Amino acid sequence: MFSFRITKKDKNTKARLGLLLTPHGKINTPNLSIVATKGSIRGLSFEKAHKLGADVFMINTFHFFHNERYKIVKKFGGLHKFLNIKYPIMTDSGGFQVFSLGFGMEHNVGKVADIFPQEIKNKQNINIKGKNLVKIYDDGVEFSSPYSGNKLFLSPENSIKIQKILQADIIFAFDECTSPLATYEYTKLAMQRTHKWAIKCLDAFGKTKKQVMFGIIQGGEYEDLRKISSQFINSLPFFGFGIGGSLGKSKNDIKKVLNWTLPLLDSNKPRHLLGIGEIDDIFNAIELGIDLFDCVIPTRWARHNTAFSYQGRINLKSSKYKSDKKPIDITCQCEVCKNYSRAYLHHLLKEKEMYGIMLLVEHNIFWILNLFKKIRLSIKNNQFLMLKKKMLAIYT
Amino acid sequence: MFSFRITKKDKNTKARLGLLLTPHGKINTPNLSIVATKGSIRGLSFEKAHKLGADVFMINTFHFFHNERYKIVKKFGGLHKFLNIKYPIMTDSGGFQVFSLGFGMEHNVGKVADIFPQEIKNKQNINIKGKNLVKIYDDGVEFSSPYSGNKLFLSPENSIKIQKILQADIIFAFDECTSPLATYEYTKLAMQRTHKWAIKCLDAFGKTKKQVMFGIIQGGEYEDLRKISSQFINSLPFFGFGIGGSLGKSKNDIKKVLNWTLPLLDSNKPRHLLGIGEIDDIFNAIELGIDLFDCVIPTRWARHNTAFSYQGRINLKSSKYKSDKKPIDITCQCEVCKNYSRAYLHHLLKEKEMYGIMLLVEHNIFWILNLFKKIRLSIKNNQFLMLKKKMLAIYT
Repeated sequence: MFSFRITKKDKNTKARLGLLLTPHGKINTPNLSIVATKGSIRGLSFEKAHKLGADVFMINTFHFFHNERYKIVKKFGGLHKFLNIKYPIMTDSGGFQVFSLGFGMEHNVGKVADIFPQEIKNKQNINIKGKNLVKIYDDGVEFSSPYSGNKLFLSPENSIKIQKILQADIIFAFDECTSPLATYEYTKLAMQRTHKWAIKCLDAFGKTKKQVMFGIIQGGEYEDLRKISSQFINSLPFFGFGIGGSLGKSKNDIKKVLNWTLPLLDSNKPRHLLGIGEIDDIFNAIELGIDLFDCVIPTRWARHNTAFSYQGRINLKSSKYKSDKKPIDITCQCEVCKNYSRAYLHHLLKEKEMYGIMLLVEHNIFWILNLFKKIRLSIKNNQFLMLKKKMLAIYT
Repeated sequence: MFSFRITKKDKNTKARLGLLLTPHGKINTPNLSIVATKGSIRGLSFEKAHKLGADVFMINTFHFFHNERYKIVKKFGGLHKFLNIKYPIMTDSGGFQVFSLGFGMEHNVGKVADIFPQEIKNKQNINIKGKNLVKIYDDGVEFSSPYSGNKLFLSPENSIKIQKILQADIIFAFDECTSPLATYEYTKLAMQRTHKWAIKCLDAFGKTKKQVMFGIIQGGEYEDLRKISSQFINSLPFFGFGIGGSLGKSKNDIKKVLNWTLPLLDSNKPRHLLGIGEIDDIFNAIELGIDLFDCVIPTRWARHNTAFSYQGRINLKSSKYKSDKKPIDITCQCEVCKNYSRAYLHHLLKEKEMYGIMLLVEHNIFWILNLFKKIRLSIKNNQFLMLKKKMLAIYT
């Protein structure tokens, strides 16, 4: 039911075209998994997202775990039935959210701010700033729910058990995600734990034709650890790979990490770069052989009134657009650009109308999926570097 | 370009079927104008609302006046072009919002709470609770913007000037809307001012084939005032009538007011009951000869997690729906009921997902417009009272 094959390699880089078949449809790679954290996309139906070009969606296990809603999903027979969609779905392991509760709060590291809403962080009964809510043991992670305050335990076994209940096409192994501020010693320890957990995940996964699992490579920003982790995870019978954890402190570090990692992985298996998705990162990663991404940037930017365009990103709340009759992007073929002016979008965003966010999300998702189409076409025609140069002149 | 004719009268009541033609399409009456306060419907495109059955939309002039955004709309050539829609639009005069700032704040009367967001009401520089921000003169109303604090002035002349710029198909005269707590003497004074303003509005409107204007009947809950106002407004060359102001303290008072008012109006002109729209009010008003409504209930209920159904209103956030595989309303033919379970909606609403509100809005608007279709069919078949009895058994 599942297969992955490389259909074309770029002549000038390690970029590659691939075709990932799942029981719910095909995914042309390189591609972006559209994030539907809690089982819906911000302001857009799955059906419409699919029409805009989305091949696959990423849903976060954590948000069906902490509230036990996976038990409801079980009664429906999995996420596809619960959400009533027929497209390929991925779930992550829940680990990223849990560990973010730990180091994210302790080290006050950026991304956490986006995972849990301010109202949760403000709750006085779980004063989390500077505190680590997470206790890590060899068999799993104990943590306090940021929603209920309840003590919860997540392990390789129950992450996989829940992901099997959720029935996503592609699932991810449960790993320990470390902070960019973690020491070498700690990152090594966490990596070793991730490796033990990878084996436990495969055991818990067993044999099934309904789902495939990606193993996750850790090792932080350390060359030897990344290489050890790549070799170890590559030695296990995962269907594909996720590149997780800290990718260093600068955008250049991402390239270094991928250069250490990707050459050691079976080139016939798909590689997913977890949670990364700025335009320049996408090009750099594809150039080095990444096939899949998931990233909330199209929706997060929309929330911040920002749209992609071939003139660069634009903030439509800026007063310079208040009477601008042009579309967001004059070259864009999306329904928003065909129908609405920047002035109308400016008005909606200034007035905090929900519809303004909906239109920006629709445009941003169309735009970035269209960029992925262009990337695939450029690889087909050996013009990837030309497209990269053009786009990075706008987005760096 | 505009016409209105009665196509059928119910044999048992004063309910009537009508056809209102506008340059942007026809409106079958009785009908509900879908509220798009600031130029968008909460969580729904105009196009989709039209597909759900919406014939006409109500936009609030106030929200294009206080921020001078009507000047932008002017550059586009009117709301239809600014919003890029081809359907009939109504605008109100702005009066309701302004006077709500006055008596609404002073008397702390209900509806105001819904007009301005809490963040506005919380602003310390305009401490409005118990204060009247509005000064009423014979030539218009001076008030402080609840958004900017700026002093603004709205008059019959500039309300009509702005409504002519906005270019809605149907516009409303500028009236003084009084509080349900106003005395007889004050209500009379305000009614007299409304009458003077009605003439000023007609003068400012002049001759045009692009728009028509409805005059507004005031007089509060007082029989003699309502009758005087009906006769006076009926004597002027308005295209139709709006029934405005306080309709008394109970639902029964609405019927009394309509019984005083409607028999005195030219029966060949359309009658719009402003801002009313609970299911029982709709039936009672149509029974007495009302043709048009505008009401935010479908979207406001959605915001409060509540859906219409033929089993009565249901709150989908209630835990009793958490694993319910049935649709919101098993008899409903909308896309939401065809595709989604109460359990999925419950999940989305519990998790505060925007998509949950979008789905509820879609269902509620379809459902209530479908109810209007049934009402029209019932009038055609002289079965209006039967339908009324059936629906009021559910919605009272």
